[in-house]
Order: sequence, then C-alpha cells, then structure tokens
Amino acid sequence: MTTSPSTALRADGRAPDELREVRLTRGWLDEAEGSVLVEFGRTRVLCVASFTEGVPRWRQGSGLGWVTAEYAMLPRATSTRSQRESVKGRIGGRTHEISRLIGRSLRAVVDLSALGENSVVLDCDVLQADGGTRTAAVTGAYVALADAIAWGTREGHVRPRAGAPVLTDSVAAVSVGIVDGLPVLDLPYVEDVRAETDMNVVVTGSGDFVEVQGTAEGVPFRRAELDTLLDLAVAGTARLRDLQAEALERPLERRA
Amino acid sequence: MTTSPSTALRADGRAPDELREVRLTRGWLDEAEGSVLVEFGRTRVLCVASFTEGVPRWRQGSGLGWVTAEYAMLPRATSTRSQRESVKGRIGGRTHEISRLIGRSLRAVVDLSALGENSVVLDCDVLQADGGTRTAAVTGAYVALADAIAWGTREGHVRPRAGAPVLTDSVAAVSVGIVDGLPVLDLPYVEDVRAETDMNVVVTGSGDFVEVQGTAEGVPFRRAELDTLLDLAVAGTARLRDLQAEALERPLERRA
Amino acid sequence: MTTSPSTALRADGRAPDELREVRLTRGWLDEAEGSVLVEFGRTRVLCVASFTEGVPRWRQGSGLGWVTAEYAMLPRATSTRSQRESVKGRIGGRTHEISRLIGRSLRAVVDLSALGENSVVLDCDVLQADGGTRTAAVTGAYVALADAIAWGTREGHVRPRAGAPVLTDSVAAVSVGIVDGLPVLDLPYVEDVRAETDMNVVVTGSGDFVEVQGTAEGVPFRRAELDTLLDLAVAGTARLRDLQAEALERPLERRA
Amino acid sequence: MTTSPSTALRADGRAPDELREVRLTRGWLDEAEGSVLVEFGRTRVLCVASFTEGVPRWRQGSGLGWVTAEYAMLPRATSTRSQRESVKGRIGGRTHEISRLIGRSLRAVVDLSALGENSVVLDCDVLQADGGTRTAAVTGAYVALADAIAWGTREGHVRPRAGAPVLTDSVAAVSVGIVDGLPVLDLPYVEDVRAETDMNVVVTGSGDFVEVQGTAEGVPFRRAELDTLLDLAVAGTARLRDLQAEALERPLERRA
Amino acid sequence: MTTSPSTALRADGRAPDELREVRLTRGWLDEAEGSVLVEFGRTRVLCVASFTEGVPRWRQGSGLGWVTAEYAMLPRATSTRSQRESVKGRIGGRTHEISRLIGRSLRAVVDLSALGENSVVLDCDVLQADGGTRTAAVTGAYVALADAIAWGTREGHVRPRAGAPVLTDSVAAVSVGIVDGLPVLDLPYVEDVRAETDMNVVVTGSGDFVEVQGTAEGVPFRRAELDTLLDLAVAGTARLRDLQAEALERPLERRA
Amino acid sequence: MTTSPSTALRADGRAPDELREVRLTRGWLDEAEGSVLVEFGRTRVLCVASFTEGVPRWRQGSGLGWVTAEYAMLPRATSTRSQRESVKGRIGGRTHEISRLIGRSLRAVVDLSALGENSVVLDCDVLQADGGTRTAAVTGAYVALADAIAWGTREGHVRPRAGAPVLTDSVAAVSVGIVDGLPVLDLPYVEDVRAETDMNVVVTGSGDFVEVQGTAEGVPFRRAELDTLLDLAVAGTARLRDLQAEALERPLERRA
Repeated sequence: MTTSPSTALRADGRAPDELREVRLTRGWLDEAEGSVLVEFGRTRVLCVASFTEGVPRWRQGSGLGWVTAEYAMLPRATSTRSQRESVKGRIGGRTHEISRLIGRSLRAVVDLSALGENSVVLDCDVLQADGGTRTAAVTGAYVALADAIAWGTREGHVRPRAGAPVLTDSVAAVSVGIVDGLPVLDLPYVEDVRAETDMNVVVTGSGDFVEVQGTAEGVPFRRAELDTLLDLAVAGTARLRDLQAEALERPLERRA
Repeated sequence: MTTSPSTALRADGRAPDELREVRLTRGWLDEAEGSVLVEFGRTRVLCVASFTEGVPRWRQGSGLGWVTAEYAMLPRATSTRSQRESVKGRIGGRTHEISRLIGRSLRAVVDLSALGENSVVLDCDVLQADGGTRTAAVTGAYVALADAIAWGTREGHVRPRAGAPVLTDSVAAVSVGIVDGLPVLDLPYVEDVRAETDMNVVVTGSGDFVEVQGTAEGVPFRRAELDTLLDLAVAGTARLRDLQAEALERPLERRA
Repeated sequence: MTTSPSTALRADGRAPDELREVRLTRGWLDEAEGSVLVEFGRTRVLCVASFTEGVPRWRQGSGLGWVTAEYAMLPRATSTRSQRESVKGRIGGRTHEISRLIGRSLRAVVDLSALGENSVVLDCDVLQADGGTRTAAVTGAYVALADAIAWGTREGHVRPRAGAPVLTDSVAAVSVGIVDGLPVLDLPYVEDVRAETDMNVVVTGSGDFVEVQGTAEGVPFRRAELDTLLDLAVAGTARLRDLQAEALERPLERRA
Repeated sequence: MTTSPSTALRADGRAPDELREVRLTRGWLDEAEGSVLVEFGRTRVLCVASFTEGVPRWRQGSGLGWVTAEYAMLPRATSTRSQRESVKGRIGGRTHEISRLIGRSLRAVVDLSALGENSVVLDCDVLQADGGTRTAAVTGAYVALADAIAWGTREGHVRPRAGAPVLTDSVAAVSVGIVDGLPVLDLPYVEDVRAETDMNVVVTGSGDFVEVQGTAEGVPFRRAELDTLLDLAVAGTARLRDLQAEALERPLERRA
Repeated sequence: MTTSPSTALRADGRAPDELREVRLTRGWLDEAEGSVLVEFGRTRVLCVASFTEGVPRWRQGSGLGWVTAEYAMLPRATSTRSQRESVKGRIGGRTHEISRLIGRSLRAVVDLSALGENSVVLDCDVLQADGGTRTAAVTGAYVALADAIAWGTREGHVRPRAGAPVLTDSVAAVSVGIVDGLPVLDLPYVEDVRAETDMNVVVTGSGDFVEVQGTAEGVPFRRAELDTLLDLAVAGTARLRDLQAEALERPLERRA
Repeated sequence: MTTSPSTALRADGRAPDELREVRLTRGWLDEAEGSVLVEFGRTRVLCVASFTEGVPRWRQGSGLGWVTAEYAMLPRATSTRSQRESVKGRIGGRTHEISRLIGRSLRAVVDLSALGENSVVLDCDVLQADGGTRTAAVTGAYVALADAIAWGTREGHVRPRAGAPVLTDSVAAVSVGIVDGLPVLDLPYVEDVRAETDMNVVVTGSGDFVEVQGTAEGVPFRRAELDTLLDLAVAGTARLRDLQAEALERPLERRA
C-alpha cells in the first residue's frame, strides 16, 4: 500500500482509513415502522421505512415481497440552496440513480419469499449533505428496514419459517477515493470535489460485494489503486456493520 | 364564551385554550443562515432560511428585498405514506396554497426597503405531521428569518438605518376550530379531522391580523362562533410570540 | 360603523356598501345541464355545471354524490395577456386555490346523500376579469348547480326524499376590503390593487359563514376593521342571495 | 355536379351549399384590442386579438412583425365534458394542429413588414362546439385581427406606407364534406361524425387558397369529388368574406 | 401543364416530375414483425411495425383491430442538432400532426374487421432528414404494415375470410410544391424551404385520395396550380406504388 | 482464472472470453461531423457526434470545451415494444444513468483545454438491443468523437498545440458477468437476464479504468470473482481498442 495511514493528514485530522463519527438514531419518528437518523459527520440523512401489506399489482400472486427506495435532498441540505425537484417538475438523473442503488442494495440482503406479499418503501431524505449521502443512506436504510421487518413480524404480517429469516445478511456502504494521490475512506464534501477517483462500495455483513461503482473523475485509475480502494472499503463497511448491529441491539425508544 | 376551559376535556388532556408543547430549536443545521426545528407536540417542521444577496431579475433596481417561502411534506410525515410531489411531477394545490400563506405572513412584518436588495427563501419541510403544520411553519419560519436577517446584518449585506429595523414586528400563527361543538386551540390531527369549523389565524406580535382563514367543513358557522375562535387565536398567538422571543434571546449554538 | 356610505366617493361613483351591477344569465349554453354567465360589473365568468351519473371510483358504494369545481382564466381576460396554463404545462397555485374554494363553498350547501351517487363538476371560466372573479364564480356557480340538480331530478337521476332537498341553502360570495382607509364592498381591479386589506367572504342564504379569507396586503388589520368588513360582506351577500333567487324564478330559456 | 341543392335535404333543413347562420359580434370584450364572438349556428368561438409592441427575441431587429394564434376549448364546449389540457399538463395534438393552422392562415394575408416590429396573438377559445370550430375560428380571428391592426394604427404603433396596407387581403375558412354521398357545406357535429370525407379550406377574399386539408375518414375520395368540394368551399368562403366586410363596416361599439 | 419537364433544371438535376432515388429495405431489424428502411434520396426513415394480439381497452369486444403510428426524429437527423422531445418533456405540434397523418393514411387501406382484435403500431423514426420525411414514412410504413399483417396471418392471429383481405389497397405519399414558379415533385430540403406552396398528398394504389394537405407558405395559390400539383402527386404515387409492390414481391431475408 | 475457455459452452457457441462480432461503420450519416453505426452481434447503436463552436453559457470564458452524451432507445429496439419517453413526458432513471456514464467515459480521454471552447454532443440511439447497449455506445461514441474532433481540426475550430492532442487516449467498454457460475465476456440479452453478477467496465486504450460498475443481481459476489471479471474486461476492451484503431485508419467514405 502506498499510503502510511499513521502519518498522513486529512483536513479534518482523520487517518486515511478512518470513518467520520457515525451515529444511528432509531425511532426518530413516532409513526413510521422504521425510522433512523443516520449521521456520517455532518452528513445527516433521515431514513424512513414504510411497511404495507400487499405488493404492486404486477407482483400480486407471486408470493414475493417488494422493497424499494426513494432518495431526495432538502433544498438547503447543501451550502447553497438548490431548486426543489417538485418545483422543477422532474426528477434529475442523479436522484434516480441513487434511489435505484439504495433499492438494489437492500434487496440483496432480503429474502423476498420470506417477506411474503408485503412491501417496504425506504425514504432517504438528506437533511444536510457533506459528502457520502448515498452511502450513509444505504447504511441507515438497512437499520430502518430491519426495524420495519421486525414490526411486520410482531404484527403478524410477516411469518418467516424457522431458519429462513427475511434478512439474510446486513448491508452497509461507504465511499472511498484518491485525493491528492492518497487513497482515503469516507470522503466529506471538501475531499469529494478534489478526488481524482471516487468509488462507492456496498458490502454485506459477511464481506461480499453488492455494488462496486468506481469513477475516474480526472485521470483513469490503475488496477493497483482499485485494489487499495477496495481494501479500504471492505474494512470501513466492516466497522459500519458493527455499528449497525450495536444500534439494533439497543432497545427502541421513541424520542422524547 | 360558551366553553369553560377549566372543566372541558380534550383527548390529550389539554384545556380548550391550551397550546401543545411548543419547542423552537435554533441552529438545527450547520450552514444555513437561519434554521429552526419547530415542534407543536408531534408536529415537527424544519424551517430553513437561505439568505442571498440580490433579488430576482424583475425586482432589480427597486431597492427592495424579497422574502418567499416553500412548504413541503416528507412522504412519511403522515401516518400512511404519500407519493412525493417530485415523483408525481406536479405540486398539489394544498402545497402551493400553504407556501403562499407562509410567504405573505412573513412579508407582513418585513420592511423590504430596509432589507435592501437581498433575498431570503424560507424552506419549511414537514418531517412529521400531526395537525397544524402550516401554523407551526409560520411560527418557526419567523425565527429562522430573524436569524437570517441578523446574519445578513452581521455580514454587512443588510444595513438598516437607525430606527428602521428590517423586522417591524414578529408574527406567529395557530389553528383554532370547533370540535364537537367546543371551540379549541391548536388542533392535532385527531381533532382536525372531526372539526366542524377550521380556522388558521396569523397574528403579529402586537396583536393585529395578517391572515384569517376560516372554513366550514360541514355546517356553516355563526358570527358568535367566529368571534370566540378569534379570541382563542389571539390569546394563543400571544403565547407563541413570547416563546419566539425567548428562543431568540438564547445564544445561538450549533448542535453538537 | 366608521364609514358614512352616503357621502364617501369611490372611483366608479358607488357608495362603499354598494355592489356593482350584477347580472345572472341562465342557460347561456345549449347543452350543459346548468350554465350561467355571471357579471359583476365588467367581471364576466361563465359557470357551467356538468351533471353525470356515477361518482369517482374512490367514492363508489358510499351512497354519496360529489361536487367539485375548476376555475380558470382565458389568457386575455385581463388587461394584458397572460400565458395559458395549458401551454405552461402546469396549473398555478392561485388557480388551484380558487378551484378548491369554489368546490368547498358549494359542497357546504349540498346534501351529498340526497344527491345520491351522481357528480356535478362546475367549470368557472373567467372571460373578463375586473376584480372579484372568485366571488362572482361562487355566486354564479350556485345558480348553475341549482339548474343542474333540477335537471338531474327531472331526468330521474336524483330522487330526494320529501323534506330532504339536495340543496340545503343557497350560497353567495363577495369581496370586501379597506381602500385608503375606507371599508368597501365588491372591489373592482383598480381598488383591489390598492387595498390594504382584502377579504373574500362566502355566506349562506341564512347568513352563516362558509369561508372567511382575510389577508393584510400591507399593514395588518385590527379587530374592529375585521368586524366592519364582515358586516359589509353579510349585507352584500344577502343582496346577492336575492338576485340568485330572482334569477332561478325566471323561466329557463335558451339564448336565441 | 352530382347534387341538386334545391331538393336535397339535410337534418337541419339547409341546402347542401348553404351556410349555417353566421354572426360576427365585434368588441365583445372591453379591453382587448380586437375581440369577436363568432357563431356558425351553435358553434361559438371567442376570438381575441392582443396587440403588443415588440416581437419575440429571435425576430428583433428584423423589421418584421409577428402574428400567432392559440386555439383551445372550454371543457364543456362539447356535449360531454372533457378534461382541461391545463389539468392534463399537456396540450393535445389536435389543439396544436389547429393553433398552427389559424396562425398560418392569418399570416397569409398580413404584410409583416408593414406591421413593423409589433405582435398580435389571436386567442380562439371555443365556448360551444357544434362542428367547424377551426373554420369559425379562422373566420372570426380575421375580424379581430383587423380591429387590432386598426387600433395599433390609431395608436401610432403601426405606420403603414400609402399603398402598402398591413392586411393584403381578407381570409375566411369553411368545412366541406361528403355525407351519405352528398357533398355539403359547413358541417355541424351530426354531419361531421358521419362524413366519409372531411375537408377544411381556407380561402382569401380574392378567392385563392391558403390551406386545403382534405381527409378521407373511411373510403378514399376521387378527383371529381375533390373538385366538387372545392367548388362548395370557394362559394361558401366568398359569402363569409362578405359577412366579414359587413361586420367591419359597422361602427365598433362596446357591448352594454 | 405549365412546366416542360424535359428542359427545366432542378438543383439535383432531376426533372420536375421525377422522384429521388427510392429504396425500400425490408427486414431491417431482426425481431420486429415488419421493419423497413425507406430512403427518398438522403431522407432515411426506419419504419417498424409491431404486431400485438388484442386491442386497447376502449376497443375490446368490438371485433375490430387497431392501427396507429408514432413519428419522431433523431436529434441529429437534420443538419443542426435539435433537442430531443423526451428531454423537453413534451411532444411538439408538428410531431403529433405527422403521427396522426400516418395513422389515418394506413387505416384508410386496412379493413379493421378483417384484422380482428389485433393491434399494429407503426414507429417511424427519421434517421436522416432531407425533406419529405412524412411522405417517406407513409410509403415505408405501408410496406412494414404489410409484412406485419403477413406475419400475423402466418402465426394464425389474423384469419381473413376469402375475398376479404386485411389490406384493401396499398397507400403511398409524396410531396409536391411550387418552387420559383415551377411545380415540382418530391422536394428535398433545399427546395422545401424555398417553396411558395407545399403540398403532401396521400394516394391509394388505385389512385384515390386519402389526404390532400396544401399550404401556401407565402402567396396563396390558384385553382390551376392546385390542379397541376395534384397531377404530379398522382403520377408520383403511382410510381411509388409500383416500387412498394416490387419490394413486397422480393423474398424477405434478414440483413446479414 | 477459474474458467477454461476452450471447453466451456455458451448458447451462441462463444468461448467465455470471446466478444460477439463487432462492427464499426463510420460515416453512417451524411451531415453529422461524426457518425458511427456500432454493432456488437445483434445490438446496433447509432452514435452521432455533433460538433458546434462555443460552449454552454456557464462555461463561457473558461477556455475549456464540453463533451456530453444522450442515450435513448427506439421503441421497438427490444423484442416487445416500449412506450417512447417523449410520449411518457419524462426520461427514466436508466436513460439518465447511461447518458451520464457515456459522457463521463468520453471526457476521461478528452483534454478539454486542447478542445478549446467547442462542444461535442454524442447521441447514442439504440436501433436494436440485444444486451450491452451502453458498452457498445461508449465504444462507438469514441470513434464518432474522434471523427468529429478531426473535422473540427480540419475546419480550424480546434487548434491543438503540438504534443497536446485533444484525445489523450482511446476508450472502450464491455460488459462482463457471472452466468450459471461461469464468468463470461460481452453478454447478450439471454445471458444478461440470467447473470448473478453484472459488470460494465470502461477502460482506456492504455488499460486503465474509467468506470467499474458491478452489481450483484442476486447473490453478492466475492473478491476473487471480481478479479476474474476485471481480467476478462481488460482483455475484451483491449481487443475493442484494436478494432477502434482499425476503423479509424480506414478512409472515411460516405455510405453510397
């Protein structure tokens, strides 16, 4: 590895392989079946899971459930205000792309047959954006999804057979990139805009890949760089997996 | 008055002329010039004021500033999920109507000449809805606007002359209604759906009216009922004015 | 009352509490179940009631009817041409707001159970606008609605029981406002743009309120001013109620 | 010719080559530079000409004016109510097609150089539709255009040189078709739906063609039938030209 | 006829009554039931016929089939790139108009009863535009439609009775116009923009008219000119009919 | 590598590491500055490069050029017809996502400073889809881009300094995936729908990565599998690079 994490300095003082402070606050809303405020440093995403009985018409009678996601940003999540997509009258390509990514990532760890003909919609609304909103959204949405499935099970809508849980694994995501030649983990906005290569990686709790999306922003990247970035991402998502597990072990209390 | 507040009972134990617990948390976001999380009981609205130098093209050279507002609801703010307006591709009538109400209410207490050619956009996003979202939004948006104008003044963009403050008064709003024949203040959702008459009233700190919007949901209402509702609203907004003043006196600290 | 109607002068010579000339021409179209050209001075609105058997899907089986309204303006109704909303591809907030107001106002005097599973859509298209288009629309739409319900009854689609008429009362609307400190009734455009306070009031034939929508355009208004405006509106709508009754007593003849 | 006009019978008693009663009411609105209510029997179209100084950006500096048209139908112009295009959020193909036809037809008789850099928009709104709305619109719009150009000349915005009038000719339009084998002029709705061939013809006052749009609805038509239809159209538009001239000779008085 | 074809010169050397080189390549796609690349000189349109069993809901149970068409242009079909209609979010009037023309033209030669409850959609996408795209589209779409109906018959979806073929005739279209006073056939772009009169004519194999759409671009046209143009169009479509027949007689082979 | 290409069998008889037949036809249109029909087996994409002087407003004065791309599919490119996005009125997420991918991929090999303030838009329209449309589009668009830049250079719009070519490298793309446990290159539709893992890889001529987009469709994938897929992709894109070079060496002749 070309970096020496112990000595390299990032603007916020983190080591190259260090995550920002991550917080997962469950039960952030009173009525939703699952609701998590996930924070990666200043990035703050509200992930809400809505559980409903039944599936869309085209899936009825299949015995399979449905999990989907919608991502959006509040207009002043960023440092300058953006126009609302509802006002523009159309959803941008970036929004579509991220919504699809979150949905695919969650479905990779759901046994839709064990879920039965029930639907969960994950709404991931970015309240404040400081880089890594899509990876924070995947990480928080998994926890909200787990709460919603637990709710559906308690209410009797989901009846998984013994040994066939609805969630076959956990899933988390993190961004990695090369900034000024240095491979780093979990990029805030100031690093993100300067990154030569930017990669979002979605990894299961057992360490396999769900998504690998690497993009050369300027100079194409070499195979060795790709390998280093994947190492960072695998280690980072392993720590996120542990934080998810800890959050889910805490009793779910409503915010006072 | 036909009601005896001391003895009447509401589902949540409040007296007819009692507000829900109201909280105004300033500085809820890190970058916005003003940001307030306003809570009326379970109703929770994020009010963010974005200050920018300059005004829209049609107003340039007028010497006047511009204040406008946009209201929206997250899809799972309500007890069942609604489709996003960005996904529908059009903004509903209710959203437009409330956005316009908030903008007019705030402009009623702003001296646009003292503001100079600067703009403030208020984004009021409902995170959780339990009745009274538009009145909570007006009440919180005023505080966010005050912070944004203070910011603009500190930064030198706003230069009010002595004795001509940008904010000529404060403004707050509350809902009142007749539920099972009883005039009540600050209706949560369960009361709102059963109200025969529903009224939203916007009142300045000095007790004058900015907006009076009363609607008979079923039976038309009599002049005496209208008078009772206006009394309740004037008293309720006077309490909100005091809560706004207290919030603005506290030092503004960023959420850790 | 602080005004002395006998001496005050308005630009068009009317007393403060005087309506413009109001005309209600029934049967203005040949095929519609109800069609009324309503004129308040130069303001001219075509109100057309379309009666159809059946109700929207979500209401089927309820035994209840449905009454709704759509308001629109021709592009050159105003003194300068506006772009069509069909060309813009979206309906503005003002249009939505007024359409909803008209619908609510009419439903306040309809017994939807007596209407049975039938629908009436009121189209209110402003042919020429000189202030007060929404209040003229409510006033004219009531007459068109009455004709459409009479048609539905004659045709046997509506079968109200004795003593339970479909229309429980009449409804009319008028604008009031404070112009140069003077409270006045039924504002044309030139007064409307100068009004400090602008109020639209919808009142039933028996004098109760359906809607009270008051807005301070500049200076907030005091309780005493509100009371004066309500007095003007109640008197004005009483006269409109009489004009509606007279129009409905005339035999319905098709325009030659 | 295969028809004997004197003996053939149409549902409304007209001879095959007879127009419906045509009325052209000028000055139907108070403020528009030109406004004509045109009636072909029950078909009733409000044609409003809005004159403005200046031309669209892409035409500035050309020395040429601009004339364009927009056609629309009120929702209950027809015997059953249609959804508004503003509500649908898109303008249908038929509307576009007719708007373009009206614009082209008028431009064929306008010397855009003599008009100078001024614009006239013709709004043709169908209040009641009983066949032939597009041809009535062209016929009425010409009269409204003439009034608007006269207004622009009186106001000094248009300064045509001697011998170079803005309007180089008049223009009118009529529908013709073959119904039950009989070629007929000016089809109302009941004939229009049964026509085997339907043709709209736009003709100048001097008898030349601006548009010929013939469509076989069922069976293709022969050259001889086409010739007969063109004869009918030429004769019909000659009568319309005379009616336009008469209308324009009457003094323009505002509707009381 | 006022032109002497043998001596007149056109920019591309053709005689006034001469078509450009026309090519009809069947089976241009591998999967579609009918697909034809039609070329009129440089104008190149891909006409694809999609055959599906069943008809739209509103036509079910009628025993009748449905044939419809959609026309579009690739963004760089023209010499300068145009914005995509999918990006604009709305389809222009010209596109709608041409789609409707193609659909009507094809339906004029289809016995929808013999087709039975089957649908054919014709997609006509202009790959390169050099004038006459709509007439090339009609001409090519007929051949694609013939192939699709042959496919449907082979597959047993269409079962015409003896003596009642689905296609009652062939149909082709061509443009004609007056350029510098000379009536010409099949105008490329350079002639089209200079034409005083422009006419598109759709004619059946037996020589009857389906559509005649003539437009004076500048000066209105006389009856004699109209007659000359129709003569040219009838002769041109007769040649196109022969080329269609030859193309359909060749064995259908997939492009290697 | 875990596969033995010589013995493994794919439905179309290819070895796992074998491309489909690839064809690159330059100059497919007559007017566009670059136009390439690219075929990967039955997948057929028309890639058209439009060169224009100047850049979008937000980039003016930067001295930098702009390269962007739009991807779309004809409605019957697939085995069943899809609705047009222009008819739906909105562009789907997949279309946006692919358009952005193509644009980023090309910009990775363009020196925008050497391009100067010129723009190239790449339109990639899928005429027939049999898997791998986005990778075929990148591969073909590169060749069209090279032709357009050559054109711009010949015309004097682009003036690269010696040693600073506009194109810093070539770029090509290919899909790889795991089908029935076997890693394979260049998947047609029948393999694509059954793939457990699907990856699109964009690689420069010198073998570095521009994009790596891997998605687990069902089971998450292991690091070793990822490595094998990357090996296949690097080898496949090296062959595509050679085919691109060969195509660009051939003289550019217009299709007869």
